[in-house]
Amino acid sequence: MQLGLKKRNGSSKGTFIDDTLAGKTRLNIDHHEDLKKQIRMINLQKQDLVVLASLKPFVQEKIHTIVEQFYRNLEHESSLMSIIETNSSVDRLKKTLLAHIQEMFDGKIDDDFIDKRLKIAHIHFKIGLEPKWYMCAFQDLLLSLIAIINEKIQTKEESLKAIESVTKILSLEQQLVLDAFQQENEKTH
Amino acid sequence: MQLGLKKRNGSSKGTFIDDTLAGKTRLNIDHHEDLKKQIRMINLQKQDLVVLASLKPFVQEKIHTIVEQFYRNLEHESSLMSIIETNSSVDRLKKTLLAHIQEMFDGKIDDDFIDKRLKIAHIHFKIGLEPKWYMCAFQDLLLSLIAIINEKIQTKEESLKAIESVTKILSLEQQLVLDAFQQENEKTH
Ligand code: HEM
Ligand code: HEM
Repeated sequence: MQLGLKKRNGSSKGTFIDDTLAGKTRLNIDHHEDLKKQIRMINLQKQDLVVLASLKPFVQEKIHTIVEQFYRNLEHESSLMSIIETNSSVDRLKKTLLAHIQEMFDGKIDDDFIDKRLKIAHIHFKIGLEPKWYMCAFQDLLLSLIAIINEKIQTKEESLKAIESVTKILSLEQQLVLDAFQQENEKTH
Repeated sequence: MQLGLKKRNGSSKGTFIDDTLAGKTRLNIDHHEDLKKQIRMINLQKQDLVVLASLKPFVQEKIHTIVEQFYRNLEHESSLMSIIETNSSVDRLKKTLLAHIQEMFDGKIDDDFIDKRLKIAHIHFKIGLEPKWYMCAFQDLLLSLIAIINEKIQTKEESLKAIESVTKILSLEQQLVLDAFQQENEKTH
């Protein structure tokens, strides 16, 4: 880490935020009018994508712990394990989830990002995953990410900034997924 | 604040968490089997309720700012303002929301808590509020609460503990509401 590159707000304290990553982030949702409004309502800005990209190395380091915890947690509800065994396998899903969580920290929101989430939503709808369990899984994921932030980031201000960006990207994914569920429900009316 | 009462973990540092509030909190969901599992999956414990109750004075102090921000944010999507004007009024809703947000910090989860959330869910379903906007409103609320935590709580560890408890209670409310939406959708099949 080049601390010299990472000063902000005139503070001499090192920050985990690497502004040189800005060029690698992307916020391009020109053809999605509602989504533009959603992103404004949750105040997701380009800088949040830089924060997420800066967090990526920490998430990558801990990704196996996150994924193990994620699946252990689903054992609380046996119907969830049945859904998995019927439609896939824990081993296969661990691999997909591992890739998916890391992609959340690419700092890219574009057509590809949106299309992938809609596809994932439709898969979950088809297997009959209820929104309440979906939300529980997201909260478990958030708690894992907060633990990583606590471990890796020193100051209160920086930790809260990290959590803000993380909750924004998780919220956006939930919005996309729940909207797709909603549309499936309307189709079957 | 009686700092003497508020030592934890053998640390001599004052904490905002007031363990004497434990007697006023309540976690009683005996007749709700799924909800018990949900609460276990998001790791919501009695201590989270104590944390929430300890945060309540800060939330009360800033409640008008939270509520103003909440409604200003809805102006991004004109259909939301139309829904409000057709079914209610901003002034009336501000009063209801003001009471509702404060109740989140009562530290009580029981039949009354659950029934109220189901009733609120049904009202929102009836007025045609889409889940994606609902989720945006929750994220806006979370960002307001993080700002308050940043202002009022000194250390990183305590701030993260506060945020954990806040995200858990918001998640639980989302689970209840989205599950009620889901059941309404199934009814209309
Ligand atoms: C935070 C919540 C979740 C995320 C981010 C997530 C992510 C994913 C991803 C990325 C895929 C792969 C989609 C693809 O093949 O393109 C997937 C598939 C799947 N997920 Fe999830 N998932 C979540 C929650 C759950 C839960 C709670 C269950 C419990 C039943 C579940 C069960 C499945 C199953 C069975 C598949 C495989 C379907 C198939 O292979 O056709 N997921 N999920
Ligand atoms: C965090 C999200 C939200 C919370 C916590 C919340 C909370 C509440 C509460 C406590 C009530 C009163 C229910 C009662 O009368 O018992 C209510 C009613 C209502 N809410 Fe929300 N609300 C949220 C989001 C929204 C949004 C985004 C809209 C935008 C359209 C909205 C529109 C309304 C309307 C129109 C009513 C009144 C219905 C009536 O008077 O019959 N709410 N809400």
